[in-house]
Amino acid sequence: MELFEKKLNSKQIFDGYVIKLFVDDIELPNGQKSFREVVRHPGAVCVIPVTDDEEVIMVKQFRYPFARVLLEIPAGKLEPNEDPLDAAKRELEEESGVVADRIDFMGELYTTVAFTDEKIYTYIATGLTFKDAHPDADEFVEVERVPLKTLVDMVMAGDIRDSKTQVAILKAEKIMAERREQNGLKR
Amino acid sequence: MELFEKKLNSKQIFDGYVIKLFVDDIELPNGQKSFREVVRHPGAVCVIPVTDDEEVIMVKQFRYPFARVLLEIPAGKLEPNEDPLDAAKRELEEESGVVADRIDFMGELYTTVAFTDEKIYTYIATGLTFKDAHPDADEFVEVERVPLKTLVDMVMAGDIRDSKTQVAILKAEKIMAERREQNGLKR
Repeated sequence: MELFEKKLNSKQIFDGYVIKLFVDDIELPNGQKSFREVVRHPGAVCVIPVTDDEEVIMVKQFRYPFARVLLEIPAGKLEPNEDPLDAAKRELEEESGVVADRIDFMGELYTTVAFTDEKIYTYIATGLTFKDAHPDADEFVEVERVPLKTLVDMVMAGDIRDSKTQVAILKAEKIMAERREQNGLKR
Repeated sequence: MELFEKKLNSKQIFDGYVIKLFVDDIELPNGQKSFREVVRHPGAVCVIPVTDDEEVIMVKQFRYPFARVLLEIPAGKLEPNEDPLDAAKRELEEESGVVADRIDFMGELYTTVAFTDEKIYTYIATGLTFKDAHPDADEFVEVERVPLKTLVDMVMAGDIRDSKTQVAILKAEKIMAERREQNGLKR
């Protein structure tokens, strides 16, 4: 049996500033009818900025759905037709005041596949220069510098909750270890 | 300035089978008015089942928002008042036919903090026994066994997209390495 769900009909419920909500009638792989609630999102980027001393420039931000401040890496929505790499550079500079010599792609993240098509493009930034942050007028963030090793321990202990931040920290640890090894071999 | 957003008013837009959508009027930390689009979700669990040979029981599932089949770890929504550990055991057995001697909590995952309160409780299952899978009537999954090491490489190469699956694989690698080391020291 092919694992395919066929769209029969789509009804838009909500057309918001960030998200759009649809309820689609579908046909399941066994031919039965069902429906899916789907939140469409424009996509986003996140970037983990790592200093030469392997400290990470983190941001603290109030997250309304949880009514609490979370520790995260810089991130933001894609603007219409914006290239993800350009968006990563823009968010990095806006939220944390960081300009990077080098930005590498770390892969895509589908945040929650059951009900939204949101994709986050993840990056790692190194060779950092520091300027003043200038967040959007409706964006309130505190910038904090935390050793990568501490962040890895925090992820493993369950103290970092945000999914993109967990993924970026665990990937960055492996990438930085690989780069250290490569540099060691070159010396 | 305190990073707090005050709820002024909440309007329910949608009351669905899986999600509820609200648009809330808020007051920003600087006193200005704004609004937040919030998807409320009952929460979910995921569990990475690792065999004694460090292979993982993965599931392939068609994910409607992306209109494609994704490789994931077993997971599912919490039922009303269900304990997350009980839900993890239930989903593990339903989706993959696996019963585990040992299940350990690996932390909470907030899937996408800007617009939903969805939390996923993450677990690692070991000491596995295999029975027949019996997914829900509207759930169509294929079960596949993949070495943990291969999955780590796939995550780093960007070939695993789902956020909970990326986190669980990278955490499981570290947990299994730690257990091997502890066992080695005991011998």
